[in-house]
Amino acid sequence: MEKYIHKVKYYECDRMGITHHSNYIRFMEEARVDVLDHIGYGYEKMESDGYTSPVVSLSVDYKAPTTFQDEIEIEVFVKEISTLKMTLGYEMKCRGKLVFRGSSVHCFFAEGRPVSIQERYSGFYEALMQLKK
Amino acid sequence: MEKYIHKVKYYECDRMGITHHSNYIRFMEEARVDVLDHIGYGYEKMESDGYTSPVVSLSVDYKAPTTFQDEIEIEVFVKEISTLKMTLGYEMKCRGKLVFRGSSVHCFFAEGRPVSIQERYSGFYEALMQLKK
Amino acid sequence: MEKYIHKVKYYECDRMGITHHSNYIRFMEEARVDVLDHIGYGYEKMESDGYTSPVVSLSVDYKAPTTFQDEIEIEVFVKEISTLKMTLGYEMKCRGKLVFRGSSVHCFFAEGRPVSIQERYSGFYEALMQLKK
Amino acid sequence: MEKYIHKVKYYECDRMGITHHSNYIRFMEEARVDVLDHIGYGYEKMESDGYTSPVVSLSVDYKAPTTFQDEIEIEVFVKEISTLKMTLGYEMKCRGKLVFRGSSVHCFFAEGRPVSIQERYSGFYEALMQLKK
Repeated sequence: MEKYIHKVKYYECDRMGITHHSNYIRFMEEARVDVLDHIGYGYEKMESDGYTSPVVSLSVDYKAPTTFQDEIEIEVFVKEISTLKMTLGYEMKCRGKLVFRGSSVHCFFAEGRPVSIQERYSGFYEALMQLKK
Repeated sequence: MEKYIHKVKYYECDRMGITHHSNYIRFMEEARVDVLDHIGYGYEKMESDGYTSPVVSLSVDYKAPTTFQDEIEIEVFVKEISTLKMTLGYEMKCRGKLVFRGSSVHCFFAEGRPVSIQERYSGFYEALMQLKK
Repeated sequence: MEKYIHKVKYYECDRMGITHHSNYIRFMEEARVDVLDHIGYGYEKMESDGYTSPVVSLSVDYKAPTTFQDEIEIEVFVKEISTLKMTLGYEMKCRGKLVFRGSSVHCFFAEGRPVSIQERYSGFYEALMQLKK
Repeated sequence: MEKYIHKVKYYECDRMGITHHSNYIRFMEEARVDVLDHIGYGYEKMESDGYTSPVVSLSVDYKAPTTFQDEIEIEVFVKEISTLKMTLGYEMKCRGKLVFRGSSVHCFFAEGRPVSIQERYSGFYEALMQLKK
């Protein structure tokens, strides 16, 4: 699968001249949106199918700074899927060098209640298997 | 009326060490929300009354830079109300010095159509008169 | 010249489900950065040549809303260059429809003082002529 | 010590009508800036003393959503200080209910190299002890 590229914007850099650390959380979301689109389960489809997948927790490591105009290559993969939760992993590289590593945990809701996607939304579950690493 | 204060955050400053110019548009919104709350017509009330007031246009002048930790004092006033539009004015000062001047034009919608607030939502129209300058 | 495309991110949309109006100011900057790169006078070059070009004022019209995943095509052109100021124009379209029109006024500084780029930085001045419309 | 309050802005809420998860990372920074100011070691002082303390990693749990106008009460405390790293903890509450819990790990740099603040910047180290929990 093609990796998602985020080119750092001027307004994403801070007083130290580097990409503000909060923005990587947004880059994670951008890349997640992109990869879900690629496997056929974009946000719009999920919403129209009646599902949402809020972020439950995040864990991230900043490995090296990036700055204005840098092209960050982002890989998203599935680390783990349990009955009620999915853990995605993220690796960001810039000119081949690891700059960021993170993970996000998501649950799934339908009709306001947590659901097991394996049982209730098996097409999505199977599509996610392609992203297993 | 008490002026609204925005204290500049670290993440609002850019590579030049100053408040990024796009953030002042957000400060305008913050101060607008605050002043409408004060006159009893906050966003929640307007929404529950069935009205929205999207931004139609903006015109702004950057007079002097501000930076991290600066306290920006923001005054919002009504410049003009016509049948279908309202123009608000904004003056931002930091340590007594003018740093920003702007205006925003808003229309009003109810049930998906533009409406005259003077006719349809006269309580709000009268409340706005307090902000005339 | 190829137009700059901004694809609207999830985190750029607001409670009404549309692109928050403040973000268009950032899209203007992104497209401006891109077009200056294309004519050979990117921010890095200008900075290393000793010039900065702060935003002095903005004037913008919101013509139609956009939302998550929309691809906004942004054209940037030179409206006017006077001795001390440059006015850039912006037109944003989505699926062929005009959604935003704006302009930004910039001055030029070198060694902390306003300068005439026509006299002092003529290569840039001539490059800008390509963007005249 | 007084807790830091962040009142959620309109532009901080997303299409689902709730505070976008990336913004809590910014609220962590705001509250951290505030608490360091209170103990006499604000960013400006640290910078003028020649120290920076970049974020090395984050770990956060989203416990409950918040929305526009909510007042989030943020407590920041020191979880651990080792020779080269400091771990801060964060608890955010809204109307008495826990909405967010997180931690950030920071290192310290002086003259471009990692330093032990206990040895090199002992005033700061002692001030941090007040925030131990």
